[in-house]
Amino acid sequence: MMDKQQIAERYRAIQDVICSGLEALDGGATFAEELWQRDGGGGGRTRIIQQGNVIERGGVNFSAVHGVLPAAVKQAFKVDDEQFFATGVSIVIHPYNPFVPIIHMNIRYFELNDNVRWFGGGIDLTPHYIQPEDASYFHRSLKSVCDAYSPAFYPAFKAHADRYFYIKHRQETRGIGGVFYDRLTPEKAAVPWSDIFEFSCGLGNAFVPIYSELVGRNRHKTFTEQQKQWQYLRRGRYVEFNLVYDAGTKFGLETNGRIESILMSLPPQAQWVYDFKAAPGSAEAFTLSMLRQGVDWLEQ
Amino acid sequence: MMDKQQIAERYRAIQDVICSGLEALDGGATFAEELWQRDGGGGGRTRIIQQGNVIERGGVNFSAVHGVLPAAVKQAFKVDDEQFFATGVSIVIHPYNPFVPIIHMNIRYFELNDNVRWFGGGIDLTPHYIQPEDASYFHRSLKSVCDAYSPAFYPAFKAHADRYFYIKHRQETRGIGGVFYDRLTPEKAAVPWSDIFEFSCGLGNAFVPIYSELVGRNRHKTFTEQQKQWQYLRRGRYVEFNLVYDAGTKFGLETNGRIESILMSLPPQAQWVYDFKAAPGSAEAFTLSMLRQGVDWLEQ
Repeated sequence: MMDKQQIAERYRAIQDVICSGLEALDGGATFAEELWQRDGGGGGRTRIIQQGNVIERGGVNFSAVHGVLPAAVKQAFKVDDEQFFATGVSIVIHPYNPFVPIIHMNIRYFELNDNVRWFGGGIDLTPHYIQPEDASYFHRSLKSVCDAYSPAFYPAFKAHADRYFYIKHRQETRGIGGVFYDRLTPEKAAVPWSDIFEFSCGLGNAFVPIYSELVGRNRHKTFTEQQKQWQYLRRGRYVEFNLVYDAGTKFGLETNGRIESILMSLPPQAQWVYDFKAAPGSAEAFTLSMLRQGVDWLEQ
Repeated sequence: MMDKQQIAERYRAIQDVICSGLEALDGGATFAEELWQRDGGGGGRTRIIQQGNVIERGGVNFSAVHGVLPAAVKQAFKVDDEQFFATGVSIVIHPYNPFVPIIHMNIRYFELNDNVRWFGGGIDLTPHYIQPEDASYFHRSLKSVCDAYSPAFYPAFKAHADRYFYIKHRQETRGIGGVFYDRLTPEKAAVPWSDIFEFSCGLGNAFVPIYSELVGRNRHKTFTEQQKQWQYLRRGRYVEFNLVYDAGTKFGLETNGRIESILMSLPPQAQWVYDFKAAPGSAEAFTLSMLRQGVDWLEQ
């Protein structure tokens, strides 16, 4: 079975493939890379693409870090180990066109020792305007990645995404969810380690084709200033989720992670409108009505 | 000594005085009021002023609520009481002109029973561009409110504001601080209840004169598009503080408070620029250099 260095190598290669794919998709901007070292051990490659044809700002971050486990994390994980290893790829893309969705992906591997290790990650979509046919395409694509490894994955991970990407104080989901899994082991997944790993790589490799299809469908749609304002308002909700609830963000902020890499998920701009009400029957009202848990997007 | 209803009445009257004062100061917009009831008991008056001559958005919220203490709060406060009463006035003003500072004020009273009750609050200033003479005026004004009640107040509450309004993950303060006090009782303050109460009203009454002076000094300054971008970036930091650290915001979100009243503190828009670096020697770099704890603003 693959060891942690092999996992990190594959993830690093996935970052390369995704960045090339996104540059080809955008057709305008290219990624700027920043290499960084972590004081306690390891480092990463933060890559940012900005002001492209499609992408206003996107980040594709790879890291492979190791060192002494922070006390707070030891306590949270209820383990005694001192050393940890973690590697992963994280992506957030904020497009210009309000009809192109925000997308987020993360695949990661965490290891304390041979007995305590797991995979986590997922892909989820945050359309500013929910379009059921796009939502259905997105979920069907994720289901087919999942089904190649276990028929149990999609239903379980879709439900987990619904629970996770939830803005409790707004009583709305961040977007239309997707798949999310955490602390996945053979015991939990009922498939071997190698399948869990390949599944995570499968998600990584599916990212560009899926997002390219969604961008292709929507990138040339015209939009009004009012629709742009709505996009900024939805981005405000994205900020709320990431700063108030997102576990990765909280973990990063509490453990003195590299702030610019952690907060690359925040949008270029966001707005807050006091007590905004969508006009009844509008596309905005439709979107709000669908931002809920438990929607079967496959059947839309 | 005044009872809780009398405290609420005075705070409500302070809201009125502040709103009139801010309308006169702005000279353009007026407050829109929303009355709300809390399911568990009590309610409030949320007042929002938008798109004025000076103020882009501001909220002045009064509430007086009572009812059953949420279990999480009981635990946090380590008390057995079931019933609570809380009243207060909260303000956040986001001006258009980047040379006019963001200001925040809160005065509040909390009571469980005759033995467990306290006052809290403060005023703090978040200039987009720190101007030492304004900062000094601001702190001297607060000191004179404090000194009327106790010479110990200003140094203690100024230090508390420095500790509280700190964005740990950025290693910078939110602004130039001000005064902040919490769970203030005669035991802690070494002055009687009535003086603590009058001190809180003194802060409330000082709000309009202080902010009027700062607005008057800066409202007609011209600014560039680049300075406006900097303002949006500083507003982004304000969002980060409020969503990640602010105790009142967290408390509100966790206890299902009225979301629009809680999040009125967020700016109309904010921006995030990846890895922004201020030009050496610029006004932006000067501001960043002063966003730290322990600055003696009286002497600037």
